[in-house]
Amino acid sequence: MLTEIKGLNEECGVFGIWGHEKAAEITYYGLHALQHRGQEGAGVVTSDGETLKVHKGLGLVNDVFKQAEFSDLSGHAAVGHVRYPTQGDGGIDNVQPLLFRSQTGSMALAHNGNIMNAYKLRGELEREGSILQTTSDTEVLAHLIKRNRKTSTVESMKDALQEIIGAYAFAILKEDKMYVALDPRGLRPLSIGKLGDAYVVSSETCAFDIIGATFEREVLPGELITISDDGIETTRFALREPRNMCAMEYVYFSRPDSDLNHVNVHASRKRMGIELAKESPVEADVVTGVPDSSISAAIGYAEQSGIPYELGLIKNRYVGRTFIQPSQELREQGVKMKLSPVRGIVDGKRVVMIDDSIVRGTTSKRIVRMLKEAGAKEVHVRIASPPIENPCYYGIDISTREELIAANNSVDEICDLIGADSVAYLSTDGLENAIVKDKTINQGICNACFTGNYPVSEDKQASISYTRS
Amino acid sequence: MLTEIKGLNEECGVFGIWGHEKAAEITYYGLHALQHRGQEGAGVVTSDGETLKVHKGLGLVNDVFKQAEFSDLSGHAAVGHVRYPTQGDGGIDNVQPLLFRSQTGSMALAHNGNIMNAYKLRGELEREGSILQTTSDTEVLAHLIKRNRKTSTVESMKDALQEIIGAYAFAILKEDKMYVALDPRGLRPLSIGKLGDAYVVSSETCAFDIIGATFEREVLPGELITISDDGIETTRFALREPRNMCAMEYVYFSRPDSDLNHVNVHASRKRMGIELAKESPVEADVVTGVPDSSISAAIGYAEQSGIPYELGLIKNRYVGRTFIQPSQELREQGVKMKLSPVRGIVDGKRVVMIDDSIVRGTTSKRIVRMLKEAGAKEVHVRIASPPIENPCYYGIDISTREELIAANNSVDEICDLIGADSVAYLSTDGLENAIVKDKTINQGICNACFTGNYPVSEDKQASISYTRS
Amino acid sequence: MLTEIKGLNEECGVFGIWGHEKAAEITYYGLHALQHRGQEGAGVVTSDGETLKVHKGLGLVNDVFKQAEFSDLSGHAAVGHVRYPTQGDGGIDNVQPLLFRSQTGSMALAHNGNIMNAYKLRGELEREGSILQTTSDTEVLAHLIKRNRKTSTVESMKDALQEIIGAYAFAILKEDKMYVALDPRGLRPLSIGKLGDAYVVSSETCAFDIIGATFEREVLPGELITISDDGIETTRFALREPRNMCAMEYVYFSRPDSDLNHVNVHASRKRMGIELAKESPVEADVVTGVPDSSISAAIGYAEQSGIPYELGLIKNRYVGRTFIQPSQELREQGVKMKLSPVRGIVDGKRVVMIDDSIVRGTTSKRIVRMLKEAGAKEVHVRIASPPIENPCYYGIDISTREELIAANNSVDEICDLIGADSVAYLSTDGLENAIVKDKTINQGICNACFTGNYPVSEDKQASISYTRS
Amino acid sequence: MLTEIKGLNEECGVFGIWGHEKAAEITYYGLHALQHRGQEGAGVVTSDGETLKVHKGLGLVNDVFKQAEFSDLSGHAAVGHVRYPTQGDGGIDNVQPLLFRSQTGSMALAHNGNIMNAYKLRGELEREGSILQTTSDTEVLAHLIKRNRKTSTVESMKDALQEIIGAYAFAILKEDKMYVALDPRGLRPLSIGKLGDAYVVSSETCAFDIIGATFEREVLPGELITISDDGIETTRFALREPRNMCAMEYVYFSRPDSDLNHVNVHASRKRMGIELAKESPVEADVVTGVPDSSISAAIGYAEQSGIPYELGLIKNRYVGRTFIQPSQELREQGVKMKLSPVRGIVDGKRVVMIDDSIVRGTTSKRIVRMLKEAGAKEVHVRIASPPIENPCYYGIDISTREELIAANNSVDEICDLIGADSVAYLSTDGLENAIVKDKTINQGICNACFTGNYPVSEDKQASISYTRS
Repeated sequence: MLTEIKGLNEECGVFGIWGHEKAAEITYYGLHALQHRGQEGAGVVTSDGETLKVHKGLGLVNDVFKQAEFSDLSGHAAVGHVRYPTQGDGGIDNVQPLLFRSQTGSMALAHNGNIMNAYKLRGELEREGSILQTTSDTEVLAHLIKRNRKTSTVESMKDALQEIIGAYAFAILKEDKMYVALDPRGLRPLSIGKLGDAYVVSSETCAFDIIGATFEREVLPGELITISDDGIETTRFALREPRNMCAMEYVYFSRPDSDLNHVNVHASRKRMGIELAKESPVEADVVTGVPDSSISAAIGYAEQSGIPYELGLIKNRYVGRTFIQPSQELREQGVKMKLSPVRGIVDGKRVVMIDDSIVRGTTSKRIVRMLKEAGAKEVHVRIASPPIENPCYYGIDISTREELIAANNSVDEICDLIGADSVAYLSTDGLENAIVKDKTINQGICNACFTGNYPVSEDKQASISYTRS
Repeated sequence: MLTEIKGLNEECGVFGIWGHEKAAEITYYGLHALQHRGQEGAGVVTSDGETLKVHKGLGLVNDVFKQAEFSDLSGHAAVGHVRYPTQGDGGIDNVQPLLFRSQTGSMALAHNGNIMNAYKLRGELEREGSILQTTSDTEVLAHLIKRNRKTSTVESMKDALQEIIGAYAFAILKEDKMYVALDPRGLRPLSIGKLGDAYVVSSETCAFDIIGATFEREVLPGELITISDDGIETTRFALREPRNMCAMEYVYFSRPDSDLNHVNVHASRKRMGIELAKESPVEADVVTGVPDSSISAAIGYAEQSGIPYELGLIKNRYVGRTFIQPSQELREQGVKMKLSPVRGIVDGKRVVMIDDSIVRGTTSKRIVRMLKEAGAKEVHVRIASPPIENPCYYGIDISTREELIAANNSVDEICDLIGADSVAYLSTDGLENAIVKDKTINQGICNACFTGNYPVSEDKQASISYTRS
Repeated sequence: MLTEIKGLNEECGVFGIWGHEKAAEITYYGLHALQHRGQEGAGVVTSDGETLKVHKGLGLVNDVFKQAEFSDLSGHAAVGHVRYPTQGDGGIDNVQPLLFRSQTGSMALAHNGNIMNAYKLRGELEREGSILQTTSDTEVLAHLIKRNRKTSTVESMKDALQEIIGAYAFAILKEDKMYVALDPRGLRPLSIGKLGDAYVVSSETCAFDIIGATFEREVLPGELITISDDGIETTRFALREPRNMCAMEYVYFSRPDSDLNHVNVHASRKRMGIELAKESPVEADVVTGVPDSSISAAIGYAEQSGIPYELGLIKNRYVGRTFIQPSQELREQGVKMKLSPVRGIVDGKRVVMIDDSIVRGTTSKRIVRMLKEAGAKEVHVRIASPPIENPCYYGIDISTREELIAANNSVDEICDLIGADSVAYLSTDGLENAIVKDKTINQGICNACFTGNYPVSEDKQASISYTRS
Repeated sequence: MLTEIKGLNEECGVFGIWGHEKAAEITYYGLHALQHRGQEGAGVVTSDGETLKVHKGLGLVNDVFKQAEFSDLSGHAAVGHVRYPTQGDGGIDNVQPLLFRSQTGSMALAHNGNIMNAYKLRGELEREGSILQTTSDTEVLAHLIKRNRKTSTVESMKDALQEIIGAYAFAILKEDKMYVALDPRGLRPLSIGKLGDAYVVSSETCAFDIIGATFEREVLPGELITISDDGIETTRFALREPRNMCAMEYVYFSRPDSDLNHVNVHASRKRMGIELAKESPVEADVVTGVPDSSISAAIGYAEQSGIPYELGLIKNRYVGRTFIQPSQELREQGVKMKLSPVRGIVDGKRVVMIDDSIVRGTTSKRIVRMLKEAGAKEVHVRIASPPIENPCYYGIDISTREELIAANNSVDEICDLIGADSVAYLSTDGLENAIVKDKTINQGICNACFTGNYPVSEDKQASISYTRS
């Protein structure tokens, strides 16, 4: 929903548990907590030690598991996945976890991220006689593991992971073991927790809170972890490189109650608002945020500036997937879809409108107009992150430079285009200050979409084949 | 959803429009804005001047109108309704608007409120040979109007309205006219707006903002308004009495972007928080509100006290009607349903937790425990309204005194029961100060649930038969 | 399905049971047996002695009771109904049994037939202040009973039944009793059986066989029967008149395994075929029937004529309600919908094609063409009933004279129109010989659609208002 | 439905078309005609020359294509499939056609039959690194073709077909060509027709009649046919062997209006009845058949014996997949599910009951009891095929010898077990006489289930691995 407003989407959320008798149910609640990471489809695969069982479907977690199907999903281990709607290749076949069966055992894969050389690897596999069932890049990893004839599964996985380039967080379930892996730069989040004696894995820590688990540690870049009844074992498939966690996870994607790299997302957003108020103050009567992702930054801006924070914009909670969009004619008559301004709050006021980011600018323009039509005297737009000027190859759907308003316009031009009285962005330094607590401990962020500094050198090359897929 | 957290429910939302070629679609968007007033069912009846057409169903507005059914709902006038889940008498038959056809014309009724003498009136009608189809008190009004043989419809309606006792806001649609009526004390909200040349009616003004309409005026207590192609005509069926708008509409039910009696709901809630901070200050590190209805008061409390407002509790957005509730066993293991605490915010802190009201206390107790388990050193509960000690006979589902924690316990006892470090409620004066702008203009509130001062003397009497129904 | 082929429809099927602990389930199986009488909707109302419970829906019995809903339909008594799709007034509201609740008790009505003066009676009721909920003529009877202030229910019912004119078989359920009634001429079938100690009522006896009940007797014309825990009581609301059971029940509507007036339907159809072979023999190689309703007559024709009976036409069993009709273009290319000819049987042969009746002639024309395209040298059409020349006012949907091919064309013209080599109909004497076993016992048939001799004199009059409804 | 009565199931039906602009729609109607061959699932894959498009689902053809999805299935070529419910491996993944995509082109497979060495081949493929997605034996063929590196597709297919052992009829669609193949003994039926300029393929010829196509010829055993815009080309992948068409196709599976090997199924069944009357006459009053598959034989028996054919058993047409089965208790009380006896026909009569075959005997026992309870004085069971004493490895679900009543009991014992007054089976010679028109043209039948003479020598061997799958 929010994603529709923003036009900025991520690939998915991953959850796993090992050693709990209600593994499927716990995974259901875990996926609920990750629902914001993907609303197109959801699935769960369980293991009872002998066989893998699967249930998946299109829609929200609630829709997919409408009646309790948990009795059919017995087992003490599970992996689950929520998927975001990508273009063209939707459909139930691509809903994860992908499950592969063979006479010698089965394997389920759940993946968040993007394998940049998937097209090339797929071609190689097919030329050798393999048949791939989905258009998902995730399936490529399964075939690479299966093709590999190393004696141990861990060795086969290491070999396979070394062949893929990109950003990824994987959870893989076999009858007797669960494996989790993170890409060598740690671009996507993935954490490990404990729930009693059980191990849990999740894209975000908010899932731990919802199920009552405690956070243990983050999965490290280049790490491959094996979880089984014998406990947890770790190995590396890549040399240690500086971590570059995706900055947009802090700015927009993750839930405010999650911690990424030991940094609470709400707190980091509030600091973005504080930094923004220091960098770009303005005289105004009220501060308001675009719900939901900009509320934290707006509160920070208000606190730092001393301007009261008010509920100037309200989000329609019940606008779901099946919402009937108003026709162009009705939109022009003023029918609003997802956001409404609160006239009683903004009428006659100078408003600071905080948003987390701008992609194409169409939404910002609409919100500014809304506020003015509701009586706002002035609207000062403050963006709690730097201008997005570059595409992302690591799993975030920032398609092409052409569509990015900041790639093609100066801040003044943007101000004109969206009809604001002033516009200011947070600086990259401001953003980094808000996110990174301790720069000495080799924990950085990936800010390529703002700066163009892609953390991995092969990536530009790989992206050529990527755009062909 | 929110309603499930609170255990406090209202009867419904009413919407109507006259003179717009897309009457059904506009009503769909209007009902969206009123969705928080009822999630059990929704319906729309349109008139094209010759016949009335109906579509209704169980579920959210989105579910009921999944595919665009608007082509089947032609006409320039419509009334719509959202319904809240009452006990026992659910089912499609009771979903409104109720539609009654006859050889001489049809009539559709949409109603928010409670007719206290419905059981008695129903018995009288049946003894005279009438067959009632639903268990809804709304149907009684239709029969009273139909039985009445006054020459004009307006006179029949006035007679019928004088027979009923209670709190109500009605919208009635016939082929050629729409009628709206409000009870003599104005306990329920109902406003009139304009959308171009069309007239619109809505339980709350937030629906006007969403469809791009402008607010005109409130329907007055005891007023019966006729809207047709000839414009708007008004008459009275009851003497002018002091208005007593339900205080809980401000405290909890209405959307923050609505204005009731010219008072913005968010602003009144923020003032409740400010009053509360003045009356019951406390030393603490963070202020947090129980989402969504207490956020405004929490911001007010923070602003007044100087303690930072933080996102200490987060609500699961995707928890819908079909959500599979965790078993008792999983709840005890810590699986949360709708709210989670944000450990990164509350850990090690003294927390002021603002809630709008307490009904049974079970939710408050759960939230306090959650916060403590997430590391809160102290939890000071501040309630932005007075203790609820009395049942409501006017359409709000505050069932019996036995279930009301404040009817049976002192504030100190409540503090013990919910495990807080301190508890304080807003005073009735504080509440009135926050809501009523100008006491001289005969505009009061009904605060019977706090004080026991029921605004209408017959009501206690009538309530006897009420409890029998 | 069959109904779609024929374009000839009846009103419904009625089932009831008193005194069986699985009343709802038995009714479900009973309605299955009556499914051919109505495929638009189905419903069951049960009584547990204290309250009536209802479940109904649109679609086949299977669809309406998809999951076992029987636990919600407790009680030792039930009435059920299947409904056929009438024009315009479909929808769930008209699905029977209609259930009316009041503070002094409830009443459920299931009806097969047509109340000819319903429009007039409805107008009178509305002028007196009643509100009718459906467009069903069945509801009128409920209001007539309720309006009537006789001290006993039976007396109220007798009065009410005397006000209505038409053809009808009613089953009415109250908390403590079941009532069944048949119109004064006995135009529609209705029988009573026993299942252990329980009483059962059904439009057709085939339902008794399916549930393992034994036939007791037919309900008599003008009889009102009361069934309760005290047993069965009978009274009359009309003078004894000669019975005129609808001939089309034998010819087309009823199931071949039902007995009507002690005459088995299959056997009567076979005799129609035998009579037809005697009256209109022809030299040919094979006899074939249009499935399913003409199979019995075809076997009779073959047996009498000595010409072998063969499967020259086959019906597609899986063509259901949701079948996607072939476009005009595909139909012209030869795509068949419901019937196909068996080329291996008819190629090069002279075929006698037996059909039970012809309404508009379009289906007959299509079948003759099919047979010729499959190679038939000659097609001799033999119709096992007389020409239908008159509309029916008693519940069979033979709409207007204009549409009836036999009302506007001679047999020779019909032969030309449908492209047959010869056409012959059964005579009315032949039909009566085939159906009526013993003419001395006052048991006749209604053959008004063939002869224009309507059995009740008021009916022409009443039909004027009928056509206005 | 019938299949449920019988407990005897086949694997599927295959349909294909090349060169028609409404390929998907024609396939829909073709699959309707083949619906009796499989009710678990259905699917269609089309080619527009560039890409393959797919739609499939669980349920009847009607359910799977509820709304017209044909606009999404553009293309001038299509293959379709109906599937029967096998044990354990249900689910959408196994619904055919199976579609395999690769960067160099796609391939869809539809299959009727059974690959006996599938388990062994699957193991070999997996050991070489292939991942198979389904548990369907059909997928094995796709991998064998893909693994094979022959320069032409036809050569790859020939190699792959030579590796598989069993009974099969395949239709394979690629972007630019359709391939059809039949096993070396021709155990399963597969025919080719023309619809204007388009080629059509179908498991049974009844589909040709329904779509208005004309029969061209049967696919020959061991033949691989390529259909494209260049016309039709044929090659062989196996030496010419005597054909052994499955006898049960004539006895039970195929539709009576289909021709197999130029023999009409209804006609062959009628001849079985005639032969049976010659071999095993009996004195009786009526002949009746178990609907639907035994009607033709019953008519033959009646014609030959001079005993009248009557409708002594009737089938419930509306008993679908979702039918709620009566509980044991209700069944004992006499509630019938799918068949009812017609008391008016059988009461007091000596009945010859014709059935096509007996598998376990439970259904026969129930029907005999039914007839006796309906008053039949004697019931003489005559079976229009020999006793089934052996399992089938060629795609018919005659599971194990243990379940076959005729494998473990003499005819006299069977007579006792099912409670008949006499039982007689058709002889194998009688069966062959009824089916085979001209024994000189190398056209035989497979009667292994009656005789144990399996037509292929390797089959016993292969069946060992088969039973392990």
